Parts: sequence; C-alpha cells; structure tokens
Amino acid sequence: MPVVHRFKGHQGRPDWEDVPTYEYTQGGARGGLKKVLIGSADGAPNFSLRYYEIAPGGQSSFDHHAHDHGVYILQGRAKLIAGWEVVELEAGDVVYIGAKEEHQFINIGQQPLGFICVAPPRD
Amino acid sequence: MPVVHRFKGHQGRPDWEDVPTYEYTQGGARGGLKKVLIGSADGAPNFSLRYYEIAPGGQSSFDHHAHDHGVYILQGRAKLIAGWEVVELEAGDVVYIGAKEEHQFINIGQQPLGFICVAPPRD
Repeated sequence: MPVVHRFKGHQGRPDWEDVPTYEYTQGGARGGLKKVLIGSADGAPNFSLRYYEIAPGGQSSFDHHAHDHGVYILQGRAKLIAGWEVVELEAGDVVYIGAKEEHQFINIGQQPLGFICVAPPRD
Repeated sequence: MPVVHRFKGHQGRPDWEDVPTYEYTQGGARGGLKKVLIGSADGAPNFSLRYYEIAPGGQSSFDHHAHDHGVYILQGRAKLIAGWEVVELEAGDVVYIGAKEEHQFINIGQQPLGFICVAPPRD
C-alpha cells in the first residue's frame, strides 16, 4: 500500500498532510524549516526526500559531508555557494552536489526559497 | 563542482538544459516521456531523479520491481493504481511506493501529468 502525503499548502507556502515541520537552524542555518516528505517513518530504506524552506535573507548551513544531494528548486531564488563556485538558481533548476562538496544555499529573493533535497537514507 | 541543469521549459512543459528526452512507451506505457535529471551521467552513485510526463489519456507501465520509488507530482492530475488501491493525486502530492508494490499512473486530467520520481541508482 503506497504512502501518500497530500499537499495541503498553497503557492509559496508548501505543506503536506502527516508531515511534521522542524526548525532548521543548526550549523549556521538561519530562517530555515525542514519537512521529511519521504524517510524512515514511511519505511523507505534507500533514499530520503526532504523539503527545505529558507526565509528571505536566510541561509542553509555551510555544509560538507560524506553524502550527496539532489536538489530541485520549487520556488524562490537562491545563491548556491559550492566550494569556490557561486551559482544563482531559480524555480525548476536541478542541482547535483557530490559527496564532500561544500555547499550553502542563500535566499536572495523576496519570497521564501523552497527546495526538495534528495539524499541517501537519513532524516 | 556542482552539476546544474537549468530549467528552460515553461509552466506545463518542463524542460532542462543538457537533459535529453526519451520516449517512455515500454511495458504498456502510453503517451509518456522521460528525462533523467540526476543519474549516472552526473556521477550520482546513490540515487537517481527522473522527470516523467504522461499525455492526457496516457499511462505509465503497470510496474512491479525490486526497487522503490518516491514520487512528487509537479503538475496535472493522476490516478495511481497500486495493488488493489486506487488513489487520485494532484500537484504537490507526495507518494512513496515500496519495493515490489505494483503501480501505474494514469493521466486523468486535461493537461500533461508531470512528476518527479526518485529511485535507487538507475537511469
């Protein structure tokens, strides 16, 4: 039987049924929240799918770790700092960040920045 | 250095730079196309992220396999047949389909059905 998390938000403020929201402020992150859309609670052993939202002026932590990320920008505008690279991103853009690559997302828009982040199993 | 696939489509017809499009018609699928947004060509060893689009009246194959799926509906309306379950889905809905669960997506809307499908590494 599939696990369904129905969308119950609206444009600009995504939210889903049976998906709790966590503050995402560790490691230098500012103005962030996190929702685990698919993870261990859904019985998913092979990957996890998370939604992150960063308020205008906020940022994710400057991260560097052994696992990789696939990111899909749902809404807003971001500056991605990745090692010595700086890339501007908009809704619909897709990014693959390999293992051990430093990375940080900064909201450079006027609206919440929202993105989906796929990773190996973790919540 | 991150791999970026910039969005170059428009609302209703997503498309990305440096991402080829394949017909998706095997196994009973009708009216489908597939784009691998993150996969082996991007050096991703842990997961793959694909975009599927199904034309109005079309359907994915009725599938049953050892790997699991995480699905995020980007646009359109779907009927998901999953074993004996039937679930209607809309943009923003998230579904986790476990290993060996039978599943088929049918476009029941007037617009292209588009969804992101995460899976263990495969293209």
